Amino acid sequence: MPVRRYAFGRADEATHPDSMRATLAEFVSTFLFVFAGEGSILALDKIYKEHGTSSASELVAVALAHAFSLFAAISASINISGGHVNPAVTFGALVGGRISVIRAVYYWVAQLLGAIVASLLLRLVTVGMRPLGFHVAPGVSEVHGLLLEIILTFGLVYTVYATAIDPKRGNMGTIAPLAIALILGANILVGGPFDGASMNPARAFGPALVGWRWKNHWIYWVGPFIGGALAGLLYEYMVIPTEPPHHTIHQPLAPEDY
Amino acid sequence: MPVRRYAFGRADEATHPDSMRATLAEFVSTFLFVFAGEGSILALDKIYKEHGTSSASELVAVALAHAFSLFAAISASINISGGHVNPAVTFGALVGGRISVIRAVYYWVAQLLGAIVASLLLRLVTVGMRPLGFHVAPGVSEVHGLLLEIILTFGLVYTVYATAIDPKRGNMGTIAPLAIALILGANILVGGPFDGASMNPARAFGPALVGWRWKNHWIYWVGPFIGGALAGLLYEYMVIPTEPPHHTIHQPLAPEDY
Amino acid sequence: MPVRRYAFGRADEATHPDSMRATLAEFVSTFLFVFAGEGSILALDKIYKEHGTSSASELVAVALAHAFSLFAAISASINISGGHVNPAVTFGALVGGRISVIRAVYYWVAQLLGAIVASLLLRLVTVGMRPLGFHVAPGVSEVHGLLLEIILTFGLVYTVYATAIDPKRGNMGTIAPLAIALILGANILVGGPFDGASMNPARAFGPALVGWRWKNHWIYWVGPFIGGALAGLLYEYMVIPTEPPHHTIHQPLAPEDY
Amino acid sequence: MPVRRYAFGRADEATHPDSMRATLAEFVSTFLFVFAGEGSILALDKIYKEHGTSSASELVAVALAHAFSLFAAISASINISGGHVNPAVTFGALVGGRISVIRAVYYWVAQLLGAIVASLLLRLVTVGMRPLGFHVAPGVSEVHGLLLEIILTFGLVYTVYATAIDPKRGNMGTIAPLAIALILGANILVGGPFDGASMNPARAFGPALVGWRWKNHWIYWVGPFIGGALAGLLYEYMVIPTEPPHHTIHQPLAPEDY
Repeated sequence: MPVRRYAFGRADEATHPDSMRATLAEFVSTFLFVFAGEGSILALDKIYKEHGTSSASELVAVALAHAFSLFAAISASINISGGHVNPAVTFGALVGGRISVIRAVYYWVAQLLGAIVASLLLRLVTVGMRPLGFHVAPGVSEVHGLLLEIILTFGLVYTVYATAIDPKRGNMGTIAPLAIALILGANILVGGPFDGASMNPARAFGPALVGWRWKNHWIYWVGPFIGGALAGLLYEYMVIPTEPPHHTIHQPLAPEDY
Repeated sequence: MPVRRYAFGRADEATHPDSMRATLAEFVSTFLFVFAGEGSILALDKIYKEHGTSSASELVAVALAHAFSLFAAISASINISGGHVNPAVTFGALVGGRISVIRAVYYWVAQLLGAIVASLLLRLVTVGMRPLGFHVAPGVSEVHGLLLEIILTFGLVYTVYATAIDPKRGNMGTIAPLAIALILGANILVGGPFDGASMNPARAFGPALVGWRWKNHWIYWVGPFIGGALAGLLYEYMVIPTEPPHHTIHQPLAPEDY
Repeated sequence: MPVRRYAFGRADEATHPDSMRATLAEFVSTFLFVFAGEGSILALDKIYKEHGTSSASELVAVALAHAFSLFAAISASINISGGHVNPAVTFGALVGGRISVIRAVYYWVAQLLGAIVASLLLRLVTVGMRPLGFHVAPGVSEVHGLLLEIILTFGLVYTVYATAIDPKRGNMGTIAPLAIALILGANILVGGPFDGASMNPARAFGPALVGWRWKNHWIYWVGPFIGGALAGLLYEYMVIPTEPPHHTIHQPLAPEDY
Repeated sequence: MPVRRYAFGRADEATHPDSMRATLAEFVSTFLFVFAGEGSILALDKIYKEHGTSSASELVAVALAHAFSLFAAISASINISGGHVNPAVTFGALVGGRISVIRAVYYWVAQLLGAIVASLLLRLVTVGMRPLGFHVAPGVSEVHGLLLEIILTFGLVYTVYATAIDPKRGNMGTIAPLAIALILGANILVGGPFDGASMNPARAFGPALVGWRWKNHWIYWVGPFIGGALAGLLYEYMVIPTEPPHHTIHQPLAPEDY
């Protein structure tokens, strides 16, 4: 059973240029993703002058905007920062011992800032449209929404572990960003009409802050963190351990480990 | 002509950690796939308050949900279990001699359990919606549905063989999960309005059990098994044999063979 | 300037097992593609009880069915036969000197047979629906349709040459099937409402024969052959020649050259 | 900090065969992209007999036509010319010092010519439909449209840098064309209803010239050039420099560097 490899990171991690590059990459990639994801919902509002996703073709448009932009966002950062683009993925990597606490904090700040800047710029270029963020649909309780976020995020972070972190992932590493992006898209096609299917606290927080909408907001933090942690623990302690102990991974998020 | 390499597997296969890991991977991946596939149909019901797929955009949404989630499910398991995620694929690999009987049984149990757990959780998070599963459309007989399942599954398993099993697949191995996922999506766009286009007994069984709907259910077992076996036999005995005899493959489903 | 490497093939090519395997692979792959492509149009007919593609979401469904199935069909055959799945691609490879006349004839027969069998089985499983094939839309003349087929097929075969044949394609070879499939999908989104956007004589011929619809049929042979030849000649004689003379390619369509 | 490696290129660059091949590749690839992109909009006009994109399914069709064709266009040229297919990408590579001025001028001419020829042929095969090009939507000012083009193109060119230019991109190079194509598709799903989401002066210029529509045209030049330059400068001077100085890149756009 692997020991947690990181407690608080290397002494110089806070100022190491690689940490700065990785943090910058997380910021830009989360910006790209949230701008496209939230923007696609505002774009449909622009067409239909009404709120919410309410037809199959709108659901497809929103799912594709999220999947396509997440694919680019991860591809653009995976060899620099690991391509988290999501505080729940970072949390899953943290509980699995694949990232230090200090690096996780850096990533979280960068991800949230990226989401906030994306939401601010969306409000500007759409001539003042208020970002929508997430809330549960009528007839769905907060508990059901929370459970749905846990399950959907579990699937997302499990895919991250299997395709982008597992040392035996092999040639799947090349298509890891696509696998992660498409499970997100598929999960939006499932969860969209129920709770919006965020699976990403930064994706939820930026629009909530700029649009100042906090209804049900907590479930989009608690659900993804629980789901991400479950996936990290399951994969790290049940799927990987049968391997012979692999060499110490000193920089799990550096390119040569990904 | 290759001899069937496995009858009942190695003596220690039942308790070998790799078998356990592979079985666990099949369980989780089938869960991911069925949750997204069946869930996307329930999501459209949530929007439209009516049953069944009845417009082009709904058909696209369902096809994408299945294709996207199957891509992630296969990518997440192909280097651990071979990425079957489908009892008919396992059966095709069995008749082609690429997997032992004992391992096939393990996979089948894991796949069915994954589908059942996905269906149960779907019923829970959708506040009690009854899973729909599959049945033939009005005007389509069981025989026509059976034939369609045979043809569609043949195409699916032929693609599995050509891109993920054939020892000469070369660089196509990297994109095998995408080829398999997209032929599934294309086939749903064809077969969806006729019989739902399951191609996967686990995909059909989980929702049938949890929603307790058994109309036409047998064709979603018999059809895929016949189609998968035909594809396995055709590929194994007509496409591969012209190659010079390749070295004995001891662990056909382990990463180094995939 | 490269000499045409093949006139009538090796003496033993007709009976060589590799030729048989390649021909079989072309047959099955064209079957998969035509079944899904033509089948997706019949599926929409099943939903709407009317003929023809007439909305944006129907156009998307048809384009995705063609692109997704062509991707799988090419991936499943590229390392065996070169993954033509299209008589116009075979013709482009022939005029570029990348394939022998005898092999081209084999491929053409296999492709047409695959398309016919797919159309027959579609008619069977759809309880007798008559395949539709292609014709020009109202307000579009045969000359315009012919020109459109030339342009669209030029784009398709140019992409085949650049990603799957060019000896300097490098790592693009891995994603060649996707590039070819997606330019087909994009071109259907353009040409669909004008002339159906076939780009493939086998795709047009099978449904025409089984549905016995021959209106405008000649343009779906002449157009793709002209477009494919133009792409082959342009690429072979203007893009490739600046390279230093490369070693004689003895089996340009065998796996090791693809 | 890297010095700008190119001022006016090598003395023989203008007549070097590789430059000619690369320029030809840019011409053909931009032709493919603009024909499919603008063509998809005309195709929807053919169906609906009205102008503009006005439903979610039309938006999806247009986004997919652009993303799919750009993927093929980049895949077909990336190992020859670097796969720019976009004057703003070429400008971003120029300000980052990755391409010489003379080569940039060649590319720009080829890209614009490809877009013009595509637009002319579209007008011909559609029996005289006037290309539409881009303009801002009602309620959106030119300043908002300009800002949106800057942001969207920034995301596009940042992705180009991270996946196709960064010397440490590693295995992401294989999927670079897909990352670039899908961020374009995602951004169209965001920006389409506001300003059309061009991100590419050639994509805007060809239809504008052939359709003779110049309203708001300047923002589709200024916006993408600013956005592309910002991405090039950010990536080149903030993300890459922490690496140890890499060996001089003599032919940054040749296949061995991509």
